[in-house]
Formats: sequence, structure tokens, C-alpha cells
Amino acid sequence: MDPRVREHAETLVDWSARIEAGENVVVSVGEGAHDLAVAVAQALGERGANPVSTYASEEFSRAYLRAREGEFDADPAHELALYENADAVLFLGGPRNTTATADVPGGTRQAAARAQQGIREARMDTKWVSTVHPTRAGAQQAGMAFEEYREFVYDAVLRDWESLAGEMAEMKAILDEGEEVRLVKEETDLTMRIDGRVAVNSAASVAYDSHNLPSGEVFTAPYATEGEVHFDVPMTINSRRVRDVRLTFEDGEVVDWSAAQGAAALEETLDTDEGARRLGELGIGMNRGIDRFTDSILFDEKMGDTVHLALGRAYESNVPEGSEEAVNDSAVHVDMITDVSEDARLEVDGEVVQRNGTFRWEHGFEE
Amino acid sequence: MDPRVREHAETLVDWSARIEAGENVVVSVGEGAHDLAVAVAQALGERGANPVSTYASEEFSRAYLRAREGEFDADPAHELALYENADAVLFLGGPRNTTATADVPGGTRQAAARAQQGIREARMDTKWVSTVHPTRAGAQQAGMAFEEYREFVYDAVLRDWESLAGEMAEMKAILDEGEEVRLVKEETDLTMRIDGRVAVNSAASVAYDSHNLPSGEVFTAPYATEGEVHFDVPMTINSRRVRDVRLTFEDGEVVDWSAAQGAAALEETLDTDEGARRLGELGIGMNRGIDRFTDSILFDEKMGDTVHLALGRAYESNVPEGSEEAVNDSAVHVDMITDVSEDARLEVDGEVVQRNGTFRWEHGFEE
Repeated sequence: MDPRVREHAETLVDWSARIEAGENVVVSVGEGAHDLAVAVAQALGERGANPVSTYASEEFSRAYLRAREGEFDADPAHELALYENADAVLFLGGPRNTTATADVPGGTRQAAARAQQGIREARMDTKWVSTVHPTRAGAQQAGMAFEEYREFVYDAVLRDWESLAGEMAEMKAILDEGEEVRLVKEETDLTMRIDGRVAVNSAASVAYDSHNLPSGEVFTAPYATEGEVHFDVPMTINSRRVRDVRLTFEDGEVVDWSAAQGAAALEETLDTDEGARRLGELGIGMNRGIDRFTDSILFDEKMGDTVHLALGRAYESNVPEGSEEAVNDSAVHVDMITDVSEDARLEVDGEVVQRNGTFRWEHGFEE
Repeated sequence: MDPRVREHAETLVDWSARIEAGENVVVSVGEGAHDLAVAVAQALGERGANPVSTYASEEFSRAYLRAREGEFDADPAHELALYENADAVLFLGGPRNTTATADVPGGTRQAAARAQQGIREARMDTKWVSTVHPTRAGAQQAGMAFEEYREFVYDAVLRDWESLAGEMAEMKAILDEGEEVRLVKEETDLTMRIDGRVAVNSAASVAYDSHNLPSGEVFTAPYATEGEVHFDVPMTINSRRVRDVRLTFEDGEVVDWSAAQGAAALEETLDTDEGARRLGELGIGMNRGIDRFTDSILFDEKMGDTVHLALGRAYESNVPEGSEEAVNDSAVHVDMITDVSEDARLEVDGEVVQRNGTFRWEHGFEE
């Protein structure tokens, strides 16, 4: 086995999920993630944890969803009980075909997502972490050779996370103290309230309320969004290619939208429920180890010169502990990215914190 | 997709597990069983059932078991809860390497099996069914070409089960009325009590208390076993080749044993717990659609000219409903087969019911 696979598994189990002896872990294994799953199993054995492995097959889901007629049963008891009794869930992505569910009707997707609300919440109540094993389908999506893609993935995953967490603490402090964020670039002038919310220093570890490996972003849950935004980084929503999404917000809600490609996928997202028309996340990418777009949200949204916004569900970690404030509890969470490397600025309470991709504390920053 | 895969899935879901709308189903997917899993997902969608798919990877298990040190935690809550809340469990075997766990120490296997007693019972309390998807590793184990093996598997699986159930009812009636079974062939003269027990007409459906697809055997839970038996059909126990097992019983318990090959695997089985030295099953193969040995217990034990005995756990279906009688609750259930096609006879209460592979009601039977 490639030693990087073992190192990936150990980073996931130790740094990211902080697995300890006696913990009950669900390992969700994508169709192409077998090798990483085996390495994770070994690490879990060494830590004395108790794994159950689930098979996260897109082709299985597609066949089921297309065949199912009528209402979906809400939160089936066996699946709910599995997650309610789990301490951690490790999602090992690893596509064999990134468009494997392309022909599942949007209405079916939405209905299935809505029926799984309790299961989703039970999962999010655990120490969950999402990561991805490099597959040929992932390489293809990224437009790379397989070996080149593997280098890319491990460069992003196998980092000095403790050191990056230190750098990101500065941005978290700015967002925690700030009240309003403004993002300005071509076809974009958007303001969002962030006061009363807590920014997460997403350092790829549940110890930082961070649930992605790789990570390297600081995110919060904005509200009262006003203005317009253009997402110029292409992406894939529910197996469909989406490009050049433009959204206009009034009173925190999307009132106008367009997409140069994939309008149907965007429309389905917006129509899922009421929360799907509001933002759930503002994220600022800070992982300089990711040096190009690969059409994978797990990587793209962490890139140093990007800002992303998510329609839908917010993370509870963005609300102060003990707060009664209701966060966006949509059934969807769809991230969209805009490139801020050129002719762009990010302001917090009127002060520029990033211009043309350079942060205030970085060399070459211009006020 | 090969139409036989769909037919297999439909037989499993409808005839075998009797899945109905709203039922919670666990689909356990072997490493090589993906295609069957997709067909099963479609069938479950059509029936309106709720699947959770688990990944039954031997390589995952091996890595975990070899890495784990110290005691295993008893019945981890997440796994236990999954099965306690399931109506049915469909085990889709499909090996990519039938010896994938060959280097897991016997003591580790035993400890892991003992720690999962409650989970095993919860699974057996569901409408569980085991089947197998034909893989190249399965073909290799059987000594066949892949296409030849697929024909073999579907010949055994896609049968007129209702009609076979009718034939098997005769044997069930004989065993239900009988008190003692005697098996006689070269190096074999074994008697077992069966009074007070109920024989199962194993017609590959939970409606018959039958949990294998294919099936085609009648089995009961014997006790007070006396004498000796030679198992001349080779088999694989825990990834290890075992041949020519000879057992001697006194007062229902193994007091002497040998094996020409795989003695260590047999010894580990016998040492698992007290029940592992007693029989849990006497099965009489009646599936004439299986015409050769393939070193797979699922098929071999159903073959028309065979009798098999299992060390360890008995099925509760062999005890009358409401009975307080304790059955063998060992952590293991290891089947061993003897060929009764030549110079062999099976007696119930002194009357011959099968001689040289021919049943009493078949053409050519000689008293």
C-alpha cells in the first residue's frame, strides 16, 4: 500500500476525528475508496475503536431513488439508530464516476433529502469528517493525470495542520469582532451581517469544529444578505455541471438568479425548501497548498484566493453555545465559489482585510 | 446489466426475504457484490422499503482485527442498534479473494466472534437471507471458468422454489416424526437424537424459516450425538483449506478429532466456546440443481447427495415455538459435509430413508 494512504488514514483518525479507544465509529466507504477504508480500519483497530462500515455507493442510491415511487418514509429507524449511537462518522469519498447520479430527477432528490432530516442531524451531532480518496474519476473531473491528481490530493491533505490553524486564527478574530462583511468584484457587491455569529477556524479537525480533510478556511453563518454576486468558478451540483451562477439578494433571500449552464440543478436547489434561498455559510479559503481548481468543492473552496457562499443549511458551530437563535436548517447545503485573486476586495466593517487575494497580514497587501 | 442479476435480486427480495413497503432493510455488500447490490437497491425502491447498505469487506475486517489489541468491546451500541431496528438483513456475498482473512490469528477471530453475540442475535431476529454474487474469486475457488461459474450459480439460485418446497416437505415430515437419526458410511457410524426438535424445510425463504439463497435442504438441531464421522468433502474454514475432518462424539461432545489439512482452523473452531464442540445442525441436501462441489458451503451443503453437520450454534427455528429448551448458542457455526452418494445410508428410527444418495420416495430406492 502507498504509504501516503496510511498517512492519510492516520491524519483522518487522529488529527481530524480525534478517535479514542472505545468510540463507536461509522466508516462510510465510497465505491472507489476501498484502499483508504482498509488503512482507516487498521488505524481504528490500533486506537481500540469500534467501526461499522457503510457502503456509500452512488449507483446504489441512483437505482433506489429512481425506482422509489410515492412518499419517502421519514428517518427510517435502523439508519437513525445507527447514527444516534455513533461517536464519529468518517466519510471516505472516492468516486468511480462523478456523474453517477445525473439522471435522478430533482424532485426525487429533494424529497429524499427532506425525509432524512433527523438522520442528517444525528450525523452532524457526531465527530464527523469528510475526506476523499484519489480515484481516476476524481482525476478526470480535475482534468489531471491520475498520478498527478494523487500528488495534488496528498499535497492538500498531508499538511502541517497545527501551523495552518495558527495562521487562520487571525481571520477568525477579525470575523468574530466584525458586524458586516462586504464582498466587491466585477458583477459582485454583496453585504452580509455576521454579528452575533462565531467564525470557525476550519483546521481539518473536530477540535476546531472543522469537518473536512483537507480544510483550510475560516467560515461563519451570514444573514441579512443584500446585493448581487457572481460565482465564476465552475462546479458540479448533483452530478450536473453548473457555471456562472449569478444571484441577487434582498432581505437575505434570493430574489433573482441565473446560470450560464446547469440552471435546472440550481433551480432544484433553490426550490428544496425555504432555507435553500438563504445563505448558510460564508467561507474564506486559506489553504495555499491547493493551487488550482479541480471541480471538487472539498478542495476548491479551501483555495487561498477564493471566497465561497453556501445556499441552505448553516453549521451550528457558527452560533454561540447556549444561543436560542435559529440557524438555517435547510435540507441542502450547496457551496458556490468566486475567485478573488484579481480586482476584488473583502471588507469587514469598512476595512479591507483581503485585496486581490492578499490578506492584510501578508506581504504585498495594499490597503 | 445481465438480466439474471435482476432476477436474482427479485428472487432475493420477494421470494426469500418477503420484503414489504415500509420495511427497514440492511443490505450487506461484499467487495465484489456491487452489481447485485445495485439490482437489489432497485427492487427495494420498487417495493417501497428503506435500505441501509453496509460494506462487508474482508480486507477491512482483516486490517481491523490484526491491528486491534486487548479486549474487544461487547456489542458496540451503533451496530447493535442498526440491527435491532432492522426488519430484514440481506447478505450479498461476493469475494474478490476467498482467502482474504487467512492471516488473522485464530484467537483474535474467536474473541471478536464472542464479543458480537448480541449483534449476531439481533441479526438473526430479522428476516435475514444470505446469498452470493458470482465473482472471479468464487469461480477460482470452484475451479471453474468465470462464465461457467455464473451459469452454475444462476442454475442453483433461479429455481422453481415453490415446487422444490413441496418435495422437501416429505423429508421434513419424516424428521419431525422421528426420534433418532443414524448415518452410516465408511469410517462413519453416528447416531443423533432429534425428538422434540422441528425440522426446517429450507426452501430459500424466510416464510419457511430458511435463510439461504440458494437453499434446498432439510435441517434440524440434533443432540446427544454418539459415534464417529468422516467429512470427505473439502471446505474452507476462515480462509483456510480443510480436508478429511474426522470427529468422535461421546455424550454429544467431540472427544477426539483430526484433519488431513487445516487442523489449526478446526482446532480454533472447537476451542471457541463450549457449544463449538457440540452439533448445532444436521442438514440433508436436496437441491438437485447443484451438480458439483465448489468449495462454497452455501452451495455444497445443499447438493442432493450430501449430508452436513455443523459444529456450534443451532437455529431457534428447530425448537418448537414457546419451548424453554436451550439450544446451542455458540459464537460459531461451522458446517462440514459428507458425500452420501455411494455406500452410505441414512436411517430414521431404524428405517432407511436414503441409500446411496437415493431417497425413499425416489425411483431406484433400495430398502
